[in-house]
Amino acid sequence: MTQLMTETKILHIDEPLELDCGKVLKEYNIAYETYGELNTNKDNCILLLHALTGNAHAAGYHTGDKKPGWWNEMVGSGKAFDTDKYFVICSNILGGCSGTTGPNSIDPATGKPYGLTFPVITIEDSVRVQKKLIDYFGIKSLIAAGGSMGGMQAIEWSISYPDYVKSTIIIASTSKLSAQAIAFNAVGRNAILSDENFNNGNYYNNSNFPEKGLSIARMIGHITYLSEDSMHSKFARNLQDKDKFDFDFNVEFQVESYLQHQGQIFVDRFDANSYLYITKACDYYDASLKYGSLEKAFERTNSKFLIISFSSDWLFPSNQAKEIVNALIKQGKDVSYLEIQSSAGHDAFLLEFEKQTKVIKSFLK
Amino acid sequence: MTQLMTETKILHIDEPLELDCGKVLKEYNIAYETYGELNTNKDNCILLLHALTGNAHAAGYHTGDKKPGWWNEMVGSGKAFDTDKYFVICSNILGGCSGTTGPNSIDPATGKPYGLTFPVITIEDSVRVQKKLIDYFGIKSLIAAGGSMGGMQAIEWSISYPDYVKSTIIIASTSKLSAQAIAFNAVGRNAILSDENFNNGNYYNNSNFPEKGLSIARMIGHITYLSEDSMHSKFARNLQDKDKFDFDFNVEFQVESYLQHQGQIFVDRFDANSYLYITKACDYYDASLKYGSLEKAFERTNSKFLIISFSSDWLFPSNQAKEIVNALIKQGKDVSYLEIQSSAGHDAFLLEFEKQTKVIKSFLK
Repeated sequence: MTQLMTETKILHIDEPLELDCGKVLKEYNIAYETYGELNTNKDNCILLLHALTGNAHAAGYHTGDKKPGWWNEMVGSGKAFDTDKYFVICSNILGGCSGTTGPNSIDPATGKPYGLTFPVITIEDSVRVQKKLIDYFGIKSLIAAGGSMGGMQAIEWSISYPDYVKSTIIIASTSKLSAQAIAFNAVGRNAILSDENFNNGNYYNNSNFPEKGLSIARMIGHITYLSEDSMHSKFARNLQDKDKFDFDFNVEFQVESYLQHQGQIFVDRFDANSYLYITKACDYYDASLKYGSLEKAFERTNSKFLIISFSSDWLFPSNQAKEIVNALIKQGKDVSYLEIQSSAGHDAFLLEFEKQTKVIKSFLK
Repeated sequence: MTQLMTETKILHIDEPLELDCGKVLKEYNIAYETYGELNTNKDNCILLLHALTGNAHAAGYHTGDKKPGWWNEMVGSGKAFDTDKYFVICSNILGGCSGTTGPNSIDPATGKPYGLTFPVITIEDSVRVQKKLIDYFGIKSLIAAGGSMGGMQAIEWSISYPDYVKSTIIIASTSKLSAQAIAFNAVGRNAILSDENFNNGNYYNNSNFPEKGLSIARMIGHITYLSEDSMHSKFARNLQDKDKFDFDFNVEFQVESYLQHQGQIFVDRFDANSYLYITKACDYYDASLKYGSLEKAFERTNSKFLIISFSSDWLFPSNQAKEIVNALIKQGKDVSYLEIQSSAGHDAFLLEFEKQTKVIKSFLK
């Protein structure tokens, strides 16, 4: 089987974008990838929305890649998001660090990286940016689909652009973060802001950057992505490359080694400022806020909905998915809901391909 | 009602203590408090074992105190641990920072604080130190009781000194930390070890100490002490002293403010090195380790057991309490178990006094 070779493209938007915070981005880039072909009616688009630290590279391989994009098992010929039928678009979120304008981009006004002068952004702002990309392709009808933070964007698409979104797929997601989820984000941000090399966000030209803080934030994240069960299955209380304790403050248990490794590989691929901005956007998001209730928010949608949750996801647990389902049912919307039994925790949306594929294919039929 | 005035005393032990790590403490102090009177048979002792960041000051008021000791509602005349009947002892754990020798103590060999030259200690080591205190009083029979890490020490007392312990009360505890609990501890330690002011543990004479890292560790801890429900009840998504978002990286939500406050007050009362040592001791503890199984470990005990868990405790959840109960039942031990319905999470053992008092009084009768 030949590998699908893909590349990230950049769309430059040279017009101002008004943001929820009241500030204006004068110009910006959108990094995106596409898979499959847009049909002549331009009505076969699936817009994939990525999770917290994802990017536009959802599927296929870039030249030199050893691993494919983050949802490769779900996107392609005959897959859940079937590129034989659909034109699949995935774009990097505003505030990210993988091509779309974010705090590590050059501020044209100063010629220097924005850092913390980058405006604080919201999920709604990101959806506005994605809309520019959709307009660029001349698309008027689409399916919005995403997991985790991507699901929040999918919800917002269905509410903000009801004439565009005919189907919405919301996976392992929520209409608003719980106090506990905000708490985890807040501690992660605290670790970054406290890092001796953070330098108020101006570290791009320094030899040191806030990697310790970013690594700690990622470790906290990873604990919330796995279930207690999956952590136990993976690591139990096994020691790391030893038979007995060393009685020091280095790694003793496998789970410690796993977290440190996850922290280390993350700092090589992600920007600490972006982590601050994107977790903030998640904290802020509450689909009901502008409308008084979630029910009211969904009143305006013209979409069919598929909601998927995972039984062991404790970051965005099934009861939060059911809140979305109930609000949609009260509005008489066409909604399908499935709780997939999985021990993989929140990460299940990146692992349980077979079960997701079956239900998504059936929904899209 | 007059306030019970109490004070922490110090017992100096001038003989060496062999530790699990293979090192020896040549001499050490034990900080302790007592409430009630030891009877002439010396068989009315309740040994209270404190949790991670607790101390010997379990009950009453020290001169000038606005708040009483950490389990004041449970210890006193007519209370769960009834000082009219019992002689209650509580001592600070080895490696702590509240009077018992720990990393902030002066190493007599150097005249300087130990810092990271303090030997890595275990729950078993702490129990050995408590045994010295019990010997000092000439006590040969006691009731061991504790919540959280205190419960782990109670378990170890019942196993290490089966001829001494006639009753064991284990609350909101576990016989060994799960991978997830180790993970949370590891991230907290990482935050301390990464702090720019940590200076390899030699910060006692510096103007700055690793307060940011210690504060982050505490915030992580607090998330695990509350249930998602109790966080939601306390904070929901309420904003902190504002009606709308400020769109910056300061505190927006009440839950963020709560965590920062908890972090701040903690760094004023606790030592970062002690946090490293005591969380390590918790990670290491596995009651079954020396005996092959938990069942085998409990075979040697001569105690009645009361196990209490709380329905919403996800740090040491009820299924871990049930593991202890099942191992005891298999050994034919006299064991009572109660899961108290509470939304307060792990912290319930410091909050649900009425329910705990009822069952403990009935057990001790």
